[in-house]
Amino acid sequence: MEIGNFKRDFTRMFNPDSIAVVGASNSLGKWGFMIPMNIIGGGYRGELLMVNPNEDNVLGFPTFRTLSDIKRQVDLVVVTIPARKVEAVVEEAASIGAKNMLVVSSNFSEAGGEGTELERKLALTANEHEITIIGPNTMGIFSASSSLCALGTPVYPPTGRVGFISQSGNLGVQLLDWGKYRGVGFSRFIGCGNGANTGIAEYLEFLGEDHLTEIIVLYVEGMQEGRRLLEAAENITPRKPIIVLKGGTGEQGSKAAMSHSGAMAGSMELYHGMVEQAGMIPVETSEELIDLATAFSSLPLPRGDRVVVVTMGGGWGVVAADACDREGVNLAALPDDLVKELDTFLPEFWSRRNPVDLVGNLRRSDQLHAIDTIMKNDEIDLLIMMGTMLGKEFFWHNLVLAVLRPLYQLVLKNIPRLPGVVQALVRGFKKSVSERQVEQSREGSAGINLAEAWLWTDYSLVTHLNRLIAATGKPIISVAMTESQKEKSGRMEGSGILTTQTPERAVYAASKLSKYSAYVKRNGRRA
Amino acid sequence: MEIGNFKRDFTRMFNPDSIAVVGASNSLGKWGFMIPMNIIGGGYRGELLMVNPNEDNVLGFPTFRTLSDIKRQVDLVVVTIPARKVEAVVEEAASIGAKNMLVVSSNFSEAGGEGTELERKLALTANEHEITIIGPNTMGIFSASSSLCALGTPVYPPTGRVGFISQSGNLGVQLLDWGKYRGVGFSRFIGCGNGANTGIAEYLEFLGEDHLTEIIVLYVEGMQEGRRLLEAAENITPRKPIIVLKGGTGEQGSKAAMSHSGAMAGSMELYHGMVEQAGMIPVETSEELIDLATAFSSLPLPRGDRVVVVTMGGGWGVVAADACDREGVNLAALPDDLVKELDTFLPEFWSRRNPVDLVGNLRRSDQLHAIDTIMKNDEIDLLIMMGTMLGKEFFWHNLVLAVLRPLYQLVLKNIPRLPGVVQALVRGFKKSVSERQVEQSREGSAGINLAEAWLWTDYSLVTHLNRLIAATGKPIISVAMTESQKEKSGRMEGSGILTTQTPERAVYAASKLSKYSAYVKRNGRRA
Repeated sequence: MEIGNFKRDFTRMFNPDSIAVVGASNSLGKWGFMIPMNIIGGGYRGELLMVNPNEDNVLGFPTFRTLSDIKRQVDLVVVTIPARKVEAVVEEAASIGAKNMLVVSSNFSEAGGEGTELERKLALTANEHEITIIGPNTMGIFSASSSLCALGTPVYPPTGRVGFISQSGNLGVQLLDWGKYRGVGFSRFIGCGNGANTGIAEYLEFLGEDHLTEIIVLYVEGMQEGRRLLEAAENITPRKPIIVLKGGTGEQGSKAAMSHSGAMAGSMELYHGMVEQAGMIPVETSEELIDLATAFSSLPLPRGDRVVVVTMGGGWGVVAADACDREGVNLAALPDDLVKELDTFLPEFWSRRNPVDLVGNLRRSDQLHAIDTIMKNDEIDLLIMMGTMLGKEFFWHNLVLAVLRPLYQLVLKNIPRLPGVVQALVRGFKKSVSERQVEQSREGSAGINLAEAWLWTDYSLVTHLNRLIAATGKPIISVAMTESQKEKSGRMEGSGILTTQTPERAVYAASKLSKYSAYVKRNGRRA
Repeated sequence: MEIGNFKRDFTRMFNPDSIAVVGASNSLGKWGFMIPMNIIGGGYRGELLMVNPNEDNVLGFPTFRTLSDIKRQVDLVVVTIPARKVEAVVEEAASIGAKNMLVVSSNFSEAGGEGTELERKLALTANEHEITIIGPNTMGIFSASSSLCALGTPVYPPTGRVGFISQSGNLGVQLLDWGKYRGVGFSRFIGCGNGANTGIAEYLEFLGEDHLTEIIVLYVEGMQEGRRLLEAAENITPRKPIIVLKGGTGEQGSKAAMSHSGAMAGSMELYHGMVEQAGMIPVETSEELIDLATAFSSLPLPRGDRVVVVTMGGGWGVVAADACDREGVNLAALPDDLVKELDTFLPEFWSRRNPVDLVGNLRRSDQLHAIDTIMKNDEIDLLIMMGTMLGKEFFWHNLVLAVLRPLYQLVLKNIPRLPGVVQALVRGFKKSVSERQVEQSREGSAGINLAEAWLWTDYSLVTHLNRLIAATGKPIISVAMTESQKEKSGRMEGSGILTTQTPERAVYAASKLSKYSAYVKRNGRRA
């Protein structure tokens, strides 16, 4: 790594008016084919120029034989040709005034031997011309501001507030895809590759000042430029959280990292010291990385650490409380006024403590009323809601399952009973939508109340919760424990309400949100 | 808890020829409605008798006014009527010679006060008549051998080898549902409820001897009958793994447990001591519980702890190796003969070490050949395969995405280029299925090889892997990192190949499998 000491033009890199692809190809599956296809597919609106000496036409674009043949300034040069030919392209780029290159080609330092020397020379030449190289051996970049998907795989991340720097391309693009399904939007993605003349520290400085980026996610193996990285991170974390997954933390892991990126993992004490001092948020697993990216990008920061858990069943409340113990989250003592208010409408047998156990009360309006009441209380900062309270669509799905299977079984085996069952169902249905039933269900013993359940659609519930989050400025984390809930809860995830599959993961996110909130308070917002 | 000291007839309980439901109801959503509906829906083949003094007919079944009116022996009595009336039902059950009751009714000891006394009397009366009570306050039971879904919610678990005892009903049925989506099959489910006269120790003894049950999963809050539980577990674990999640492990958690099940959590040292001595497998989170239930029920036990990780990208290999460090899993040194064999067909640039990094080699036959070769090597016990290698269905999904979006964008913005792109695609496609391409791709630089990818369907891949597992008797754990892979990998999960979403979770499962294998070796198979 030969970091160039010159001012970089990341604005042009991530908002290019023109892109030249050196090595553009019509061969299915080659980088020179995949990357321009993905740039087109992502909806990039600038000029796309194809460079290939052997084809007249690539993907319908007339080609230039060489980069120099373009004969005017180009904002970004993408390179996919073999390693030993790349240095010459840098000279050509310089000749037309290009300042930014994305070098996808591999077989540089990651391959060792000659590759290492090729990379060193590449970096020195680029430094001489003050050209910023992302890569070599990168899976590419994404930039929301210009709909630029210069990526090796067809991911097309949704636009959002998360800037993601990754020292592994494969891991990076798969996390982009995973994040997409979790409702995470991205501002930028940078696959560092080998980091020939530009590394994590420079990218971090860029994202720190980038107005589109409000949350930063890092996957790092080596920690080059430690001092510069630390300073950049220290400067950023009071304004934007930095979530970091370190590869190569263990003995076997660091050997694998050596073999992968050639990164010297360095001492773990040093890493932990740096993370601590800079106020970064370290995670241990890829799942935690995505969970926190989702949490920080979809929720407001809590004002404090007073957490309430609302559960429909005691066991899940216990599991959530245990997770709070492990993660150092305090279950807030319920203020007296809150207990009194909840007493006015909850069934007699509710838990009266935190976790708030509604003990299978099936009235959606009660559940929502309880959540409203808790969220509006001044002494509560964050709410975890177990069992996503999806509306009638989910409810009917379950009801249909509960009714159709028995009917099917009767048809299979016992036709004579069928009319009786149907009659009973019709009677039960009528009773269940009657006014009296609505009253009875207050005692919590009258079963499901269809008249009441009917009032809520998925959409109305999600809207209600989103308004509540906006009105109170407090986060709600919802837990969809079963897969069938999870499938249906797509609507909630996409809507900006964080949904995790287990209480433990909700508590983990709550813990990191409130700890970061405390950190920001201590360190001020050095805007 | 007043454990009855009499011989129990769990065989009849879980294989009843006749079931009476006391409190059977036509009211939608009541327990007396839900449970018989689910029994019918589950396909129970025995006799179902409805007891209700106020209705002539419930769900098409003519009713008995009281349980005694049935006037003949019934194998299982399900009770859903209010708490204070349940003791009398025990007397009635005794009068007709019933030996097993499932008491769903709540407001017993979990409600405290009068409820506690009601439960004590209920237990004593049952003990006097040597009647086994599951509950009160239970969400019910499932039994695969008689397709019995006597559950409060319409879950219908698939049949399999996992017996599950849960002290929380809500948590229990949601884990059943989650397990179902992960491809876990169940032999029995027992929602303990308050455990009036029968508890976890008795259920454990039953599952220990139960031929249908090969893996036992426990959710416990209190540890009553510690000595008996320990002895039962010690006796079972050399033959069947017992996976246990303990609720109430922390300070806040144990308070919540007190309030939920009234369980005194007891000292954590005692718990850990018991788990250790009995050779049970403790988990910390609900996710780990499901992961291990899936792993142990779908895979053969590895013969040792020599693990190989195969990855398509270096970063994920690093993350997996780190997880191995955390979980105490040794990445096996690749034996020389294995490296030599892999060298004969893998591209030059493969990692030659563990994790085995195929560096984006897209030939499916190479991937499979590598996996075959590794699995068949005598010095390897378990394989983790990153990036599920789904067949052409998944592959085409991605290809279509890679091609259709660019075409769509061109139609939107730049029609004139469209014919050129299509022409290039057709040319590229032809080239990509040519013989020469198949050869070229050996050098790993020629992009995707459609001719070769075409050979594998999802089904053929899964069949191949399943045969490999069967032939070698060794487990394969597959990792589907992106959500789109995960969706498609349903086919793999259902097929008996364990699929986790992250490398970390795969390594966790691998660790527990190999540790349990070592435990079984040390403790013999005291069949």
